Amino acid sequence: MRMLKLKKVSVDTAPENTVFLSRNCSIYRAEEFIALKKVKVSSARMSILATLIISDDPNIVADDELGACEPAFRRLGEVEGAKLEIAQARPPTSLDAVRAKISGAEMTETEIEAVITDIAAFRYSPMEIAAFLISSASFMTTDEVLALTRAMTNAGARLKWDFPIVVDKHCIGGVPGNRTSMIVAPIAAAHGLHMPKTSSRAITSPAGTADTMKVLARVDLATDEMRGVVEKENACLVWGGHVNLSPADDVLISVERPLRIDTKEQMVASILSKKLAAGSTHLLIDIPVGPSAKVRSQEEAVRLRKLFEFVGDRIGIVLDVILTDGRQPVGRGVGPVLEARDVMAVLRNDPDAPDDLRARGLLLAGRLLEFDPQLRGGAGRARAEELLESGAALAAMERIIDAQGRASTPACPGDLTADVKARHAGVVNTMDCHRLGRIARLAGAPMDKGAGLDLLKKIGDEVGKGETLYRIHSCFQSDFDFAVKMAEENLGVTVNASSKNIGRSAS
Amino acid sequence: MRMLKLKKVSVDTAPENTVFLSRNCSIYRAEEFIALKKVKVSSARMSILATLIISDDPNIVADDELGACEPAFRRLGEVEGAKLEIAQARPPTSLDAVRAKISGAEMTETEIEAVITDIAAFRYSPMEIAAFLISSASFMTTDEVLALTRAMTNAGARLKWDFPIVVDKHCIGGVPGNRTSMIVAPIAAAHGLHMPKTSSRAITSPAGTADTMKVLARVDLATDEMRGVVEKENACLVWGGHVNLSPADDVLISVERPLRIDTKEQMVASILSKKLAAGSTHLLIDIPVGPSAKVRSQEEAVRLRKLFEFVGDRIGIVLDVILTDGRQPVGRGVGPVLEARDVMAVLRNDPDAPDDLRARGLLLAGRLLEFDPQLRGGAGRARAEELLESGAALAAMERIIDAQGRASTPACPGDLTADVKARHAGVVNTMDCHRLGRIARLAGAPMDKGAGLDLLKKIGDEVGKGETLYRIHSCFQSDFDFAVKMAEENLGVTVNASSKNIGRSAS
Repeated sequence: MRMLKLKKVSVDTAPENTVFLSRNCSIYRAEEFIALKKVKVSSARMSILATLIISDDPNIVADDELGACEPAFRRLGEVEGAKLEIAQARPPTSLDAVRAKISGAEMTETEIEAVITDIAAFRYSPMEIAAFLISSASFMTTDEVLALTRAMTNAGARLKWDFPIVVDKHCIGGVPGNRTSMIVAPIAAAHGLHMPKTSSRAITSPAGTADTMKVLARVDLATDEMRGVVEKENACLVWGGHVNLSPADDVLISVERPLRIDTKEQMVASILSKKLAAGSTHLLIDIPVGPSAKVRSQEEAVRLRKLFEFVGDRIGIVLDVILTDGRQPVGRGVGPVLEARDVMAVLRNDPDAPDDLRARGLLLAGRLLEFDPQLRGGAGRARAEELLESGAALAAMERIIDAQGRASTPACPGDLTADVKARHAGVVNTMDCHRLGRIARLAGAPMDKGAGLDLLKKIGDEVGKGETLYRIHSCFQSDFDFAVKMAEENLGVTVNASSKNIGRSAS
Repeated sequence: MRMLKLKKVSVDTAPENTVFLSRNCSIYRAEEFIALKKVKVSSARMSILATLIISDDPNIVADDELGACEPAFRRLGEVEGAKLEIAQARPPTSLDAVRAKISGAEMTETEIEAVITDIAAFRYSPMEIAAFLISSASFMTTDEVLALTRAMTNAGARLKWDFPIVVDKHCIGGVPGNRTSMIVAPIAAAHGLHMPKTSSRAITSPAGTADTMKVLARVDLATDEMRGVVEKENACLVWGGHVNLSPADDVLISVERPLRIDTKEQMVASILSKKLAAGSTHLLIDIPVGPSAKVRSQEEAVRLRKLFEFVGDRIGIVLDVILTDGRQPVGRGVGPVLEARDVMAVLRNDPDAPDDLRARGLLLAGRLLEFDPQLRGGAGRARAEELLESGAALAAMERIIDAQGRASTPACPGDLTADVKARHAGVVNTMDCHRLGRIARLAGAPMDKGAGLDLLKKIGDEVGKGETLYRIHSCFQSDFDFAVKMAEENLGVTVNASSKNIGRSAS
């Protein structure tokens, strides 16, 4: 046997396994492995597949060592110095089905399951994952979407709850400030429904629910802690990163994101697999529609709704899909602290709370409450209002915050501010969700909690020349300068001189 | 400006640019770059795009450094310590056309040119390259193949020659031992045609023309040296690696190979772009057809021939496409030294020279010579035989060898040998090109020049029980053991007890 010694190399290539081999390796001929770039690494107990990088630096790997990066080192589960063999990796056999798909074949449920199992076990390299995603992006039957959803659910952990109904609510995203989960969850909890809400951190948006909730409470709860909060307070609002639901989805996303592949089919499989794995029985899906949102036309939204319904029915989740107005950000704040401020203002029934966020939160909460079989048809909305106005929702939120762990110091909006002003008088006509999101990100959101935008005017509002449309908040000068410069180039808001032809909110 | 210091990290990620950033970077927030994994690195003089790896090891990069691997370091063209900025990489705009292609659109010539220009400039990550390849693998119109061929040609260097006719010959591969270029080139040279033959090293086969020629002469010639050899001796047989023809092709191959994508469209564009860039005016293409070759049916071969002809006509290369018998290896030797032995035996008119290699060489040389307008139709074959039998071809080969630089010590076949024997008497019925190629590779070919197989029997030969079918040669015990074990599992040759129904050579 030809044995290399394991060395840990402290670089992070997650989710991909990567290993280093010396070009002058004394045990294997490095040249042999260069062309295919992928090797099978075997210890006495297990094997992983890894991408190979050839090293000429003896400080990284010596000639008798194999250097394993994070996460390859962790997945091998061996100590440094452990004996390892390597061999040319045979591509996972499930890749044959991907190749058939590239040639135009439909994949069977068994084939999709094999692909997803291999992906969840980190056996696919990024380019192999791209091959699967792109062959699927050209066409995917509804049966394939269903099979993909099931396979992704089964590839990870699955939560079980002792409640007859487990509700959840998910927005497909694309609209800044749309933090309704933080209003819906406490209303559901106050009503007595169970809502174990996990969400992601923002990746390309200025704030996710997890980022915003983190302003108020701890969000990185392990599965058991999360279970404790839900059992005690009916709901939680935590980060999904520690819960290991649909791990294949996380791997797929690591390739979809850089490639900006964003097909409806993969979105449906991704969302429904995570919710099914989280143990949801009833799910409300919010699809904002607008010219700068993810879904740009009513027709497209309806097609997406039907796909959600097709898959949802077959995997046994009760679905309610709602199309909402996505023509502009929701609420005033964009960025974690500013959005948390808006959410708490709504829950406190503050007279200054943004009307649109309050209305959107009540709309969704009303629909969600109707999952309760005890509630008469159409009574959800009034019940949601009652729970909000009575302070029951606020009290529920405070209990959830305490159960998760209240944040010690309240964060404040960034104190570097610039007012972006109307260049002429008139009425706000359009607000570009995408553009405003980018400006908020340049300002530092979501990494700097206090960075972001405060939108003082919304579509339909009258403005005078020189009046402030929105305020940029930053914590660092360089971010601030970038954001201001970008807003100067294109502020993302148009103002009509006339007050005719103004878009009105549809919801 | 936020400036990092350049550090060279001696690891090789070619052809991809890769850079390391410390997780605790004091100048940029590493977290900001993790999701998209790709950064734009700018010095005072230039920018490159690179894949980012986050490091936790201060020996690899310090908190104020950016570590650049080969080839990123070389492409930046700066010294260590040079000041660099980084930014989130915007995906190349040409990727929009790839995304449209994924959705089923045909790409325009301009779009394909933009994609190939970006790929040749190393602006695409492997997964982005996979996106292009796979969207193209599902369908590609003949016009797209033509545009791809032109774009790949234009993306690199292009050789110009002062000869009225520049001939070349290319085999699409898949058949071990098929070293006819080393017979055709000296015959062409002896006749007075110019044939600047560049070829690749074997990647997945047991020997390429460059590997086999290297047994006899230097092959890593720079462009000017190669030009000198051709001007003096009419032909050369060199490795294409230093000539920088169609560099986009090399990048595409680095992804096609691990993904085992091997579409006819990409093959045609790859071959014709390299030949056009090499300045060929007349090209003979050899398509071996057989059950274990790359092309498995006559029908498939004809479709491929038509695609070669369509593109060849439009880019202005005179093409002759020939379908040959690919049901078994050609010649006796498989592996560089053994194949070089066979080639030289044919050129020396040695009575022991393998008949099939001689016949195949003459077939192709005869067709190639007919590119000469002075030669009467049908006279090529006789002329080729005349040049071979008179010793003119051998003399031309010796001059080419001397001009390139004769190898000092003659290499010998590996001295670890094992005879693989017939298990019963009968007639050789099939020889599996793919299997025999793999056994030869396990034996050490092409890296150990003397490793490989010596095929003592071919299809149609009678064998007695226990008679040797082929001999395995290795230079190292462990390779030898692997190869012998693989041959024992499946020797790749079948013997029919009856002498009926035996395949006969078609050419």
